Amino acid sequence: MNRVIVKVHEWPELKDPILIEGLPGLGYVGKLSAEHLIRQLGGRRFATIISSYLPPQVYVMEGGTISIVKQELYYIKGKAKRDLIVLVGDSQGLNAEGQYELSYRVLELAQELGVKEVITLGGYSIGKRPEKPRVFGAATHPEIVEEIKKYGVIFAKSEPSGGIIGAAGLLIGLGMELFGMKGFCLMGETAGMYVDPRGAMEVLKVLSRILDIEIDLSDLEAQAMQIEEITHTVEEIMRESEREEGREELGYIR
Amino acid sequence: MNRVIVKVHEWPELKDPILIEGLPGLGYVGKLSAEHLIRQLGGRRFATIISSYLPPQVYVMEGGTISIVKQELYYIKGKAKRDLIVLVGDSQGLNAEGQYELSYRVLELAQELGVKEVITLGGYSIGKRPEKPRVFGAATHPEIVEEIKKYGVIFAKSEPSGGIIGAAGLLIGLGMELFGMKGFCLMGETAGMYVDPRGAMEVLKVLSRILDIEIDLSDLEAQAMQIEEITHTVEEIMRESEREEGREELGYIR
Amino acid sequence: MNRVIVKVHEWPELKDPILIEGLPGLGYVGKLSAEHLIRQLGGRRFATIISSYLPPQVYVMEGGTISIVKQELYYIKGKAKRDLIVLVGDSQGLNAEGQYELSYRVLELAQELGVKEVITLGGYSIGKRPEKPRVFGAATHPEIVEEIKKYGVIFAKSEPSGGIIGAAGLLIGLGMELFGMKGFCLMGETAGMYVDPRGAMEVLKVLSRILDIEIDLSDLEAQAMQIEEITHTVEEIMRESEREEGREELGYIR
Amino acid sequence: MNRVIVKVHEWPELKDPILIEGLPGLGYVGKLSAEHLIRQLGGRRFATIISSYLPPQVYVMEGGTISIVKQELYYIKGKAKRDLIVLVGDSQGLNAEGQYELSYRVLELAQELGVKEVITLGGYSIGKRPEKPRVFGAATHPEIVEEIKKYGVIFAKSEPSGGIIGAAGLLIGLGMELFGMKGFCLMGETAGMYVDPRGAMEVLKVLSRILDIEIDLSDLEAQAMQIEEITHTVEEIMRESEREEGREELGYIR
Repeated sequence: MNRVIVKVHEWPELKDPILIEGLPGLGYVGKLSAEHLIRQLGGRRFATIISSYLPPQVYVMEGGTISIVKQELYYIKGKAKRDLIVLVGDSQGLNAEGQYELSYRVLELAQELGVKEVITLGGYSIGKRPEKPRVFGAATHPEIVEEIKKYGVIFAKSEPSGGIIGAAGLLIGLGMELFGMKGFCLMGETAGMYVDPRGAMEVLKVLSRILDIEIDLSDLEAQAMQIEEITHTVEEIMRESEREEGREELGYIR
Repeated sequence: MNRVIVKVHEWPELKDPILIEGLPGLGYVGKLSAEHLIRQLGGRRFATIISSYLPPQVYVMEGGTISIVKQELYYIKGKAKRDLIVLVGDSQGLNAEGQYELSYRVLELAQELGVKEVITLGGYSIGKRPEKPRVFGAATHPEIVEEIKKYGVIFAKSEPSGGIIGAAGLLIGLGMELFGMKGFCLMGETAGMYVDPRGAMEVLKVLSRILDIEIDLSDLEAQAMQIEEITHTVEEIMRESEREEGREELGYIR
Repeated sequence: MNRVIVKVHEWPELKDPILIEGLPGLGYVGKLSAEHLIRQLGGRRFATIISSYLPPQVYVMEGGTISIVKQELYYIKGKAKRDLIVLVGDSQGLNAEGQYELSYRVLELAQELGVKEVITLGGYSIGKRPEKPRVFGAATHPEIVEEIKKYGVIFAKSEPSGGIIGAAGLLIGLGMELFGMKGFCLMGETAGMYVDPRGAMEVLKVLSRILDIEIDLSDLEAQAMQIEEITHTVEEIMRESEREEGREELGYIR
Repeated sequence: MNRVIVKVHEWPELKDPILIEGLPGLGYVGKLSAEHLIRQLGGRRFATIISSYLPPQVYVMEGGTISIVKQELYYIKGKAKRDLIVLVGDSQGLNAEGQYELSYRVLELAQELGVKEVITLGGYSIGKRPEKPRVFGAATHPEIVEEIKKYGVIFAKSEPSGGIIGAAGLLIGLGMELFGMKGFCLMGETAGMYVDPRGAMEVLKVLSRILDIEIDLSDLEAQAMQIEEITHTVEEIMRESEREEGREELGYIR
């Protein structure tokens, strides 16, 4: 078995397409963003990637059918000034080799479809819930840094301090080094501990202005409120029980 | 050395065969079921798989001879309306790559022998001993879900919640995606902490009705009773010692 | 780089040679035995194995020169009724793949040199220092079990209970399955926690009778006594300090 | 994707060049030394190594641009009696296979450029801050040991006791075994827990005498003093807080 199998269902003809990546990562910011983009702009799946670098696992879906762990490529045509290819999936590569191979294969396919620019989407963990998530950036070329700064994206040396790990880093890094592509990464601030639609919303706001498209965010807003309600309730319960414990402890001292 | 070596001892001619998998997993439900099937229906080994994806180990058998860790394929001919190929073995692949490669190679061989359908057998852990083990299912196609439901198999979204991991998932997942095969997985409820013939019995009851064959389960019943007796004794001892400790603790307070 | 590089320094002409393995393992029993054999019978190194399955490391030797981690093959000619090939080394393969590949490559070379029989040497851990180390065995064929039993070797089902792990198991397992070779493993009882010449001595006593050769064990005897003296002193100190602690604790209660 | 991609930007013509390695390791002694050498002698980058054996990661640089994890080769021409090739990088190979492959590929390229001698630089951890860091050595041939001893380098059997792990060991080990090269390793004593310019300075002092070149060490001296100041302050704070705790504990007893 080839370690990466790319099943191309359709070869789309695309106009100067941009590759956009949103695989699972910190706060699922990238994945939420990319999936929302596909849903809102009517993306069409044209390729499936099955790989022994991914977990050996199938999911059980609505109705009892299975779905093997995979990555998928969608195209979005005629919705923006430039066409889009969007990479989403269930998992990133399980190890360094897998991360490199999967990114490389996606770039290879993207190049065949005319891609010269790559945008990767991800989260940027600050360890606590941000008041209003900022969007951090990193780019392949100084002129792109300047360009993207205009949209309020923050560029800071050594931020994130550990660099950008995984597909969000490699797709622009390998894209630049081996495929002569340009690109940048947008990272939405997130606590990173649970699925975080707020981070995704901020990333999408920036992205929509960069791509000059309209993206309705009401779904993500609703999802965010739902998650916040749950989080709030949980925190309330925890505070309550802490107070209870406090009272008991006080009682113990008296 | 090739990482997977398939030694075919005999090329059986089979009538529209079904591939059935029962490798080690939760509660050894799949392995117990598949081995029982082979024993009861007189399966004949026709292929051995030796692989550097399996543990680097030999077992010492009755009489002091060795047996290298392996997977084996048996065929069962003329016992059911359709012939069967049964995959059993000492171990699953040690890592993701191994899981994919071994499943792929088995599917390749199965396809050569005319297999178009795959049934995988496994356990489904609920963390405690089930009253009466239920049988959960997952299938490649909605029509198979409907078909199998008739036999009392439970199909539930996201059950098991982590999906189906290992060969039981991959053989139907890769079978569908890369070989155009249909298939389903039967998972017997099990505590999952020890060898569990009860889970295997429920799986085999469903399987025998699906395949329209008679399978004598008295061996497994005997084995189950033996294990339950041991478990019962152990639990008795533990309860006793807990009571002892409790008494001591009470004594300590007085 | 090829993952296994076999540098053959000399192609010996050997009479019906037997391959004997003694790589590092439990109590270093196999390694001690094989190296003693080479030393006593004047083995000559004819091949070196360098491999990326071995640790990425060089040792610093007497005089400050380096030695890369390796496995080595020696031949012993004209000292026994049959010639011998002895495999020794600094390390076994680091993972399952490496274990299989290295064993396979050694068997391939052995076959080229006419080897049809393999003897592997190892330790058998019982968790405590054995009174008089017994020698356990496992063989590829029942007739070999019968043959070797005559030399006092103990053959017991499922002993060792986890099977034989690593090169000592694979060289006879793969030898039988893929190269049509016969073989057996001799395992000297050992505490397994430190280098154990006593286990090696028992293995060598059995081996010398099987091969019908004389092996002087006085070196190993001396080494064993030295180690026992150190162990004894350490144990003495520990018992002493335990007694001290006991006294202190009593003092504390008073 | 090839697991090691060597992008050669320029093929320098070099006079009997020596390969010098300084990749990240204990106390960053090797990396600091090699980078200082490049800076001081005006090294020119001629090759970049991108590899799936390295971490799947990009760094964010000054100005917000990215840099993929890589190893790099510089040449230094006409500054010493012999020309130099210097290997530096962000990381060593992530596993044994990667360590071997990366070292092998560098040696292959070095051989093409006429390299017959290799010097590797590293740290030698003694677990505490050394008064005056000594420089330990290990070499491929006894005559090199004698030669290098003259420069005050200490050669001691089994020092470092675990041997030399990683590129510093493999480049001379594989260089000798597979490429017929000579070489030695210089290891500066270091606590090994933080970046240690003092160790690098001692290594560079020895190296400059061996290569008969002048190397200005004032930058490293300044860096060392800065680190020492920070360390000193931290230790001061810790001692202070320990004293505080001590006082509190005394208070508790009164």
